Amino acid sequence: TNPDLAKERSKATFDPTKITNLFDGSREATARRQKLAALIRNDPTGIFSNEENAYLHRTDRHVRALAKHVRLIELCRSIGIGQDTNGEIVLDKDWFNLLAAVADDLPTSLHWVMFVPNLISLCDEEQQSRWLPMCRDWKMIGCYAQTELGHGSNVRALETTATFKKESEGGMKGGSWVINSPTLTSIKFWPGCLGRTCNHAMVIARLIDGDGKDHGMHNFLVQTRSLDDHTLMPGVTCGDIGPKIGYNNMDNGFAKFENVEIPRRNMAMRFASVDEQGVYEKKVVSDAAAKISYITMMQVRSLIVMEAGRALRMGTTIAIRYSAVRKQGFKSSKTMEENQILDYKQQQHRLLPLLAASYCFFFTGKKVLNDLKAIENRLMNLKDGEATITKTEVGDIHATTSSLKSFTTTITADGLEDLRKSCGGHGFLQSSGFPELITSYLQNPTVEGDNQMLPMQVIKILLKLVKDVQSGNIEDWKKTDCSYLLSPVGAMLNGEEAKPCSVDSKEAMKKTDVIRDAFQHRAASLLVSVAQQIQTDVMEGKKFEDAWNGALIQMGRVSRAHAAFLLFNNFISGIEAEEGKLIGENESTVLTDLALLLGFYWIEKDIGDFLEDSYFNAEQAAWARACTLEMMDTIRPNAVSLVDANDFSDFQLKSALGRYDGNVYPAILEASKKDPLNATEPGPGYEQHLKRLIVDGAGIYSGTSSRL
Amino acid sequence: TNPDLAKERSKATFDPTKITNLFDGSREATARRQKLAALIRNDPTGIFSNEENAYLHRTDRHVRALAKHVRLIELCRSIGIGQDTNGEIVLDKDWFNLLAAVADDLPTSLHWVMFVPNLISLCDEEQQSRWLPMCRDWKMIGCYAQTELGHGSNVRALETTATFKKESEGGMKGGSWVINSPTLTSIKFWPGCLGRTCNHAMVIARLIDGDGKDHGMHNFLVQTRSLDDHTLMPGVTCGDIGPKIGYNNMDNGFAKFENVEIPRRNMAMRFASVDEQGVYEKKVVSDAAAKISYITMMQVRSLIVMEAGRALRMGTTIAIRYSAVRKQGFKSSKTMEENQILDYKQQQHRLLPLLAASYCFFFTGKKVLNDLKAIENRLMNLKDGEATITKTEVGDIHATTSSLKSFTTTITADGLEDLRKSCGGHGFLQSSGFPELITSYLQNPTVEGDNQMLPMQVIKILLKLVKDVQSGNIEDWKKTDCSYLLSPVGAMLNGEEAKPCSVDSKEAMKKTDVIRDAFQHRAASLLVSVAQQIQTDVMEGKKFEDAWNGALIQMGRVSRAHAAFLLFNNFISGIEAEEGKLIGENESTVLTDLALLLGFYWIEKDIGDFLEDSYFNAEQAAWARACTLEMMDTIRPNAVSLVDANDFSDFQLKSALGRYDGNVYPAILEASKKDPLNATEPGPGYEQHLKRLIVDGAGIYSGTSSRL
Ligand SMILES: Cc1cc2nc3c(=O)[nH]c(=O)nc-3n(C[C@H](O)[C@H](O)[C@H](O)COP(=O)(O)OP(=O)(O)OC[C@H]3O[C@@H](n4cnc5c(N)ncnc54)[C@H](O)[C@@H]3O)c2cc1C
Ligand SMILES: Cc1cc2nc3c(=O)[nH]c(=O)nc-3n(C[C@H](O)[C@H](O)[C@H](O)COP(=O)(O)OP(=O)(O)OC[C@H]3O[C@@H](n4cnc5c(N)ncnc54)[C@H](O)[C@@H]3O)c2cc1C
Repeated sequence: TNPDLAKERSKATFDPTKITNLFDGSREATARRQKLAALIRNDPTGIFSNEENAYLHRTDRHVRALAKHVRLIELCRSIGIGQDTNGEIVLDKDWFNLLAAVADDLPTSLHWVMFVPNLISLCDEEQQSRWLPMCRDWKMIGCYAQTELGHGSNVRALETTATFKKESEGGMKGGSWVINSPTLTSIKFWPGCLGRTCNHAMVIARLIDGDGKDHGMHNFLVQTRSLDDHTLMPGVTCGDIGPKIGYNNMDNGFAKFENVEIPRRNMAMRFASVDEQGVYEKKVVSDAAAKISYITMMQVRSLIVMEAGRALRMGTTIAIRYSAVRKQGFKSSKTMEENQILDYKQQQHRLLPLLAASYCFFFTGKKVLNDLKAIENRLMNLKDGEATITKTEVGDIHATTSSLKSFTTTITADGLEDLRKSCGGHGFLQSSGFPELITSYLQNPTVEGDNQMLPMQVIKILLKLVKDVQSGNIEDWKKTDCSYLLSPVGAMLNGEEAKPCSVDSKEAMKKTDVIRDAFQHRAASLLVSVAQQIQTDVMEGKKFEDAWNGALIQMGRVSRAHAAFLLFNNFISGIEAEEGKLIGENESTVLTDLALLLGFYWIEKDIGDFLEDSYFNAEQAAWARACTLEMMDTIRPNAVSLVDANDFSDFQLKSALGRYDGNVYPAILEASKKDPLNATEPGPGYEQHLKRLIVDGAGIYSGTSSRL
Repeated sequence: TNPDLAKERSKATFDPTKITNLFDGSREATARRQKLAALIRNDPTGIFSNEENAYLHRTDRHVRALAKHVRLIELCRSIGIGQDTNGEIVLDKDWFNLLAAVADDLPTSLHWVMFVPNLISLCDEEQQSRWLPMCRDWKMIGCYAQTELGHGSNVRALETTATFKKESEGGMKGGSWVINSPTLTSIKFWPGCLGRTCNHAMVIARLIDGDGKDHGMHNFLVQTRSLDDHTLMPGVTCGDIGPKIGYNNMDNGFAKFENVEIPRRNMAMRFASVDEQGVYEKKVVSDAAAKISYITMMQVRSLIVMEAGRALRMGTTIAIRYSAVRKQGFKSSKTMEENQILDYKQQQHRLLPLLAASYCFFFTGKKVLNDLKAIENRLMNLKDGEATITKTEVGDIHATTSSLKSFTTTITADGLEDLRKSCGGHGFLQSSGFPELITSYLQNPTVEGDNQMLPMQVIKILLKLVKDVQSGNIEDWKKTDCSYLLSPVGAMLNGEEAKPCSVDSKEAMKKTDVIRDAFQHRAASLLVSVAQQIQTDVMEGKKFEDAWNGALIQMGRVSRAHAAFLLFNNFISGIEAEEGKLIGENESTVLTDLALLLGFYWIEKDIGDFLEDSYFNAEQAAWARACTLEMMDTIRPNAVSLVDANDFSDFQLKSALGRYDGNVYPAILEASKKDPLNATEPGPGYEQHLKRLIVDGAGIYSGTSSRL
């Protein structure tokens, strides 16, 4: 091990293993995860090796990733993964640890991320009983086909049609659906695994019933390829959409449908059905059932929050270890001894707040997933399920997940790139691990609700809160994540003078309560001002659409402020809740240091928010800035151990810079030598091209000729 | 043409062609550029086509890029490019237009970007007369080899050695240099075109003279490959450093030297020499000559500023055209008509300030290049050249170029990525043109002075200004870019109460002077506070190194504030200077609108800077925000024409989304179909892998087995 890293590790004031257990959930869970990771790493087929990833052409990477998937399934069957879940491998709690151990994108992932969950939530029981076993056995492999060439965000504008055709009019027995892509822009475009991998697609299309009436978007299970030989079904054209900035193992695909006929019962019929005559009917389902399927959608966003933390944890692990090993710049003009770059304040200012954020997202991710699980359980345990879960509660968790998804994925996408830059030139190398980590991550700000658009969802709900506060209708809000807004919003609406921050020294500032209060005040204050802006605009005669459009930028600020409060609050309460369980006082002290750093850093970054309405005065602003610096000093000695606690193996990090042993330079060089461009000597461009200049003299200047 | 785009174009209040001429320098220059571009586009060999770029493996792209270079040279010779510059193609003013027309990275670029300029500035006349003709004829192809595996920024810590060996001790006739890479970390690493392309390297190494004395870094011309067959010279090992996040046409390389012997006269001897006995001597050169070589280095940074603008102009062209064509979201609940996404305020907030920045950078890039040229001319025209150019003046332009390089490349790197995101999912596609534009651009924040480190250079000079103001020594500063700081810094140092902004209405705010004053005040105020912070820390007993380190983050703020002032100021004065020449009143009005938008946007972004010392009050802050919105409204109708004025051809943009005709959807689909992954049906992963699941049943659940 590199001696600088060893020294860093010896300085830790806490036990990294305890934090590892916290991330995993228990000591046993850590051991299990490590065992599964070893299984992948040591698999005798060798197919899981990621060593060649960066050197393969995209086509080869895709093929190799498919091979990994097949081997993974085979392995799972052989060791009984999925046995506790009726054979459903992807529902086994070990599955995600296995995927993390594989540490490479699988083209099949949409099958379990979207396709199967969609089957479960939108199909009726008979349909599920037919299709789920085929999914379980990996004969039916599916994708989720919503987005079209012309429309993503505006789902209501999708153009694909599913038109009912009665048996009597030449349809299949019992009637059928004819799926069509009537325009160029209606071609399905983007669905993951649609291009080359899947044989079924859950297609979102406008339902045209037997009378030609349009009932809007519904889901249809369309077989795209033969189960015998994977050839395309009649009327289906599909393929891969081509190379992307990242995520290139995946065959995001396009599909055009020309009179593709599927059985009537391939419409997902849990919430609506069409009979053999083509008569459309909404089904009467319990409110609870409807809510559960809605909750499922939100779980995806919470997983994204969790994943944002995880991606940041990978990034900070690489950048912080490297910054402890990398030396650049003499300590003083008198010595040849160099500084570890981790000791420069500006380097710390890039790395340590992101380290703190990576931890912070974990606590919130965990809390929100638990909250959703609790709601789901409450809904499932109700017989007729109307009462206990209010619309307000569902709205609240929708606001929570939307604001968090947008905020955390923005920080992570930008943060990973900044971490890469903090490694100087070497961060530009694929072998640093950053390029792939970043470019594959970059989809997150766009998918599952564009980050610029989610704030609108958040605001709709928060404006409802403002209205309810105005009308004194706040009971339902009291047990929600938004409850912190009630009292300050109430006071502001009453025209009460807001109390500015009362802290009177830098030391007094260094309290989590001070930060929490500041974030609480800011969110309430921005929210009230957006509400008033829209109201004023409308009263002054603007069209609502224009008032709304004019407030979009401010909505983004409110949504971020809401997310920041929640994240900070959950960080603090999460640490408190864990102390004495998996972690002790030493660990909770370090975690609280991280929370303080993050809080001050976020305040510093948006200091205008706090100065503009005089919540902070200039002196307090300066203290906040000074506190950021001081917290960086406090955290510095624990930095390496805090990333070690993530317990990512070198196999997972795939980074010459982030290696546990810190031997970065031989690793970089070894990776370089592997490039196929080095396979021949001289290189592959010489004989045919360069030689024409260097030997044949194609570039010799021979005096004047006629000038163009 | 797409009707929405046509409509946009019809709305313009100015003549885009006039602005095109402004960018090119004259009407004739525009015509010439277009003529050269057509030559490349229509070249009968077809080698310049960029259509396949995204589908090729890295090795093939590199080879193809070499082929382009060779063809380009051949073409240049055949039409007399370089004839006005003694055969030196790369010095011809047409050269950069040809490169822009090729619109693909050439692995040879370091030859003219660094190698030849280095030869010219550091070699003596006899050396130049031997080597430059070989460069001109493309027989000697060189790279600039400074960075090592272990050291980039800290140049003084480089480890490669060049040890003198007398003829009498077995050296070559007249003595020689023995080049060595004594450690793993001393291996040269990163030089562009070193890996596979070049046959010579300008190697920076520690000079060890005949007496074994170390004279620090000097430049040595080392032949790396044979001119006959491109095989490696004895003792040289080199290769490509492997795949990178972008810029993969280029063979950035590594090189290890083991007792590589080169003639004594291969040391670059303009400023120092070593005689046949190995005696080292600094040469007496005029101060002017030394300064000129320094100026040359700064020209590279100014070109980077210009390029930052150009890259942003490409990015905004793609994103704005696409945003005019893309429709997403119904105008109201009553209609199926959809909005152009360019009409959403948050979309405008992402795109229009970057549009403004892309224009702004152009004016500053042009001004700084002119200033440098003027200084160079003044220096060249002096006989003994000491007097007229002061150290202060040189320092000033160093501060200017350093702060601008750091600021503009940060905005461009972040901005391009945000432009990509603004295109939603389709921005993720290679065919959008963004991935390559961005990933190749990403080197700019790191190379030629890391963006986080340049501010230190800026501050060193600005602190000197503070000191000179303190001691009343300001005469030299009066004709510099920094002169705007003199009066406010003087006032602040005298303890005078700063005058806050006096604007008393939103309308009164909408003046370029108001913004300029605000930027001026901010830069001065941040500078004085950093100066005071360092001073106080040192007086309170901190070591200077620690005080410096503690101020690093604030230095970054000062440097940005300085850059923002310069950019804004040059934008305004640049527009004024052009009106009535290439552009008329209509154009200058539109350009001033852009300047106002940019100013308000930058104020809004860093509003805390202006609130913290009460330069703005809360009301003024709100006005600034409102002015941003209003300026977006003003610019909106001209947005498409403002990007059309860039006059990038579709061939150059390489973007399905940014096409001039707006026919984006067929173009996207066509690009998709070309992916080699679509070459076979079913796809290449089926037979060997997927089939094992779908047909052979490798994943079938067959009940319990023993669980791991
Ligand atoms: C890697 C990847 C994987 C994907 N996988 C799948 C998949 O498996 N299945 C599937 O169906 N789809 C998939 N998608 C598609 C994805 O869901 C869409 O890209 C996403 O919904 C965004 O929609 P869009 O691309 O149409 O962007 P657009 O909606 O066109 O957005 C473009 C811009 O317009 C702005 N904008 C749009 N509407 C509004 C509005 N009303 N108000 C203000 N601003 C607006 C946005 O903020 C954005 O800046 C995937 C996409 C990617 C990149
Ligand atoms: C695409 C590309 C092309 C290149 N081409 C060439 C070429 O042709 N020839 C050549 O010789 N080189 C080339 N380089 C190398 C390039 O010049 C270096 O990468 C650059 O100088 C940065 O140095 P570094 O990589 O050692 O980063 P480092 O100096 O190691 O920086 C790492 C981090 O430490 C911080 N840091 C370092 N020192 C200090 C300090 N004193 N104070 C505070 N913070 C500090 C930096 O801000 C950064 O965040 C190229 C690099 C790239 C990426």
